[in-house]
Amino acid sequence: MYKLEKSDSPLYMQLYTQIKEDIINNVLNANSKLPSIRKMSSDYKISKTTVESAYSQLYAEGYIESHPKSGYFVSKDIVQNFKSIPKKNSNKQIQKDYKYDFYQARLSEDVFPKKIWSKLYNKAVCSINFGLYPNKQGDLALRKQLASYLSKSRAVICDEEQIVICSGFADSMFIISNILKNFSSSIAIEYPGYKVVQEVFSLQNYKITNIPLLKNGIDLEKLKKSKDKLIYVTPSHQYPTGKTIPISKRIELINWACENDAYIIEDDYDSELSYNNRPIPSLQGINNNQRVIYSGTFSKALSPAIRVSYIVLPKKLVNIYKDIFLFSFSGVPLDIQKTLELFIKEGYWDKHIRKMRTLNKKKHDLMKKAIKEYLKDSVQIIREGSGLTILIKACVKIDWDKLYMLLEKNSIKIYSTTYDSSLNDNTIYLGFGCFNENEISIAVKSFSKQWFKAIKNTN
Amino acid sequence: MYKLEKSDSPLYMQLYTQIKEDIINNVLNANSKLPSIRKMSSDYKISKTTVESAYSQLYAEGYIESHPKSGYFVSKDIVQNFKSIPKKNSNKQIQKDYKYDFYQARLSEDVFPKKIWSKLYNKAVCSINFGLYPNKQGDLALRKQLASYLSKSRAVICDEEQIVICSGFADSMFIISNILKNFSSSIAIEYPGYKVVQEVFSLQNYKITNIPLLKNGIDLEKLKKSKDKLIYVTPSHQYPTGKTIPISKRIELINWACENDAYIIEDDYDSELSYNNRPIPSLQGINNNQRVIYSGTFSKALSPAIRVSYIVLPKKLVNIYKDIFLFSFSGVPLDIQKTLELFIKEGYWDKHIRKMRTLNKKKHDLMKKAIKEYLKDSVQIIREGSGLTILIKACVKIDWDKLYMLLEKNSIKIYSTTYDSSLNDNTIYLGFGCFNENEISIAVKSFSKQWFKAIKNTN
Repeated sequence: MYKLEKSDSPLYMQLYTQIKEDIINNVLNANSKLPSIRKMSSDYKISKTTVESAYSQLYAEGYIESHPKSGYFVSKDIVQNFKSIPKKNSNKQIQKDYKYDFYQARLSEDVFPKKIWSKLYNKAVCSINFGLYPNKQGDLALRKQLASYLSKSRAVICDEEQIVICSGFADSMFIISNILKNFSSSIAIEYPGYKVVQEVFSLQNYKITNIPLLKNGIDLEKLKKSKDKLIYVTPSHQYPTGKTIPISKRIELINWACENDAYIIEDDYDSELSYNNRPIPSLQGINNNQRVIYSGTFSKALSPAIRVSYIVLPKKLVNIYKDIFLFSFSGVPLDIQKTLELFIKEGYWDKHIRKMRTLNKKKHDLMKKAIKEYLKDSVQIIREGSGLTILIKACVKIDWDKLYMLLEKNSIKIYSTTYDSSLNDNTIYLGFGCFNENEISIAVKSFSKQWFKAIKNTN
Repeated sequence: MYKLEKSDSPLYMQLYTQIKEDIINNVLNANSKLPSIRKMSSDYKISKTTVESAYSQLYAEGYIESHPKSGYFVSKDIVQNFKSIPKKNSNKQIQKDYKYDFYQARLSEDVFPKKIWSKLYNKAVCSINFGLYPNKQGDLALRKQLASYLSKSRAVICDEEQIVICSGFADSMFIISNILKNFSSSIAIEYPGYKVVQEVFSLQNYKITNIPLLKNGIDLEKLKKSKDKLIYVTPSHQYPTGKTIPISKRIELINWACENDAYIIEDDYDSELSYNNRPIPSLQGINNNQRVIYSGTFSKALSPAIRVSYIVLPKKLVNIYKDIFLFSFSGVPLDIQKTLELFIKEGYWDKHIRKMRTLNKKKHDLMKKAIKEYLKDSVQIIREGSGLTILIKACVKIDWDKLYMLLEKNSIKIYSTTYDSSLNDNTIYLGFGCFNENEISIAVKSFSKQWFKAIKNTN
């Protein structure tokens, strides 16, 4: 029996939490069937949408599976012994201005709250002593705000002493690579993955092992064989495939790290923006912050121009960090940190995230509609529903060289799923990050014109 | 850092709990030394009894051991499951607020032009697209302003393509160390010198050669013998001695670099602030930009809090830089860069530099006057007339341990000329960077009181 009551937490979240706990505590066993949505709805006198939302979240996190025509089941992969759970593209190209750039990792110009930001900046300036060097680790007040936000929003378990404010993702990786230098000389990286990781760790003389992706995330057997003690993953929203590592596999991964005294770098770059499900809780929180280094950023939701990211270190790595960094490098501009602190403290950040979720969902739907309208049956949508991109596959024979040439001529840029732009798996990303709502349809229409010209004549 | 606050739990219990947690979490490792009771008591402004009680409880429970005459240590038996990272031994100290801090590399709060900066910031924000990643090398418009300023003010010969905007001095050195990684595995550094250089290059696995200083700058014979191909110098205002390399020796140094295909890193951190002479033209300009990497910063004249520095690369190194950095790391916040660009462009920077020169000269003279007035014949001024500090030598026998203890007790901080604070050459720096004009005399007076108490009785 689930207890659903009026509270600050929405009904579907209450249901989701209680079912999840039953699965974790073996009240519901692997493969056992969940009540149908209809039955749940009538038993608890709640709407079908409420049940659907709860199931959909459990599904997204991998707790349950959906079997066509027979309903929802607890995942067969669920590790029954949940002992470790505590109770609670970088295609290397010159940045060029295209008329229509389907890149995913950008934001359209109109989303940054300039007025509020300027207002807060002026306020911040008044309180700053510009004569002193800032604390490299980051301004304490900002770290406190972040710790509280991360706990609430991403189930990250940490205090401000574990947080380091960094100048963007590469800086985050640079710091981690130096902290772990004496711990490991190699790093395993999910493949395909975000190339910057490889670049930064290579620069620090790490050997790189590529671990291929299976349907449910990285190939753990290959990881075990590699003997690596350090792995980089994007568990909540794999880059670039968009997959989520389900909870059972998350636990396997954590167990691997605990058994091998290994570290997991969890890059949680855009989870807070998830719009079809509630954001999936972090890997870091499962492990009670011992073997996971958590990495986050303000680039995806607020602005890549202000250059602020952060990492959350396991407690035992904090002193190593201090030894290496505290007195030489010194960080992010204090005025930017203070402004960001006020932005979070005064509630603008939460509001902004909510706005971005709605906006991204809207843009996603507009993009999907435009693809259907203009590209019709010539493509199949392979992945949708998360992030700032839709993955499509050609259902016709495309002369890719010709397409590329035509697009370049018309100042349109698209992205392939492989690093080398070879496009040989017939799939491409259509990202909508840098378009505003009005531009999406026009951009897809312009793209479609060239697309149809590039279809191979099969006569 | 421990957090001790008014609460139901007695202070000693709070301290005990937090230290215990650090030991359990391996923040404090087996055999590591705890701060002395005296230090703890003064650092946290709590009574010695409080510290003693906390230590005594930890001792009783076996967390720590007491070694006669050397202090308290974390028990060697503490189970350490984290084995692989060796501890670096450093005598680095936590940044602390002193009542009178004679540190030279800070600015007093009143020198930063907050109003103008805020105004320009608001103007800059309007022109920025916050949705895009900034150019790692730095905003082109700022680089153009800088190139023109450097040519005019420092006789640096360069165009904007050679300039890289960096996040402070250590970041500048980090970039240089990576560019030259394949060129050299060792670096010669003037000694004594700025320790951050050694730290950054060590982190990048460079071997360090210390080149001692002669009266007129580094010992060139020793440099030649070292076979190093890379040297770091501060030719216009040696840190920390304040010496200037005369032109004849500059030419010898350049000749050495040309003959050996070597590179010179010229750290020109505060030359524009010179107030007793016109600033000495850069080394870079003599060499027509072939063998010198020029490094500058906004930390000494404008603010260390905004984190902006820059390097000027010889043309042949620009492409290596691009290969390594252009696509992974991406730089300084665009809003700060744009504000700085406007600050230079609209003439505020030139005005600010002139103001700072006058102000620093005035402060210097006030400091000199105060030293004569309060310290009288007990000291001799060894170096004056440049930078933000005056170097003095004791003409009396000082009990340095006693002095240090007295100063600490009175929240006064002074700096020795050697890295290790041993003060054994009887000289100290009295920096006036962080004082405003009214504070200088009071600070020296307060210092002098303790100074005279620490004179050894020679009867």
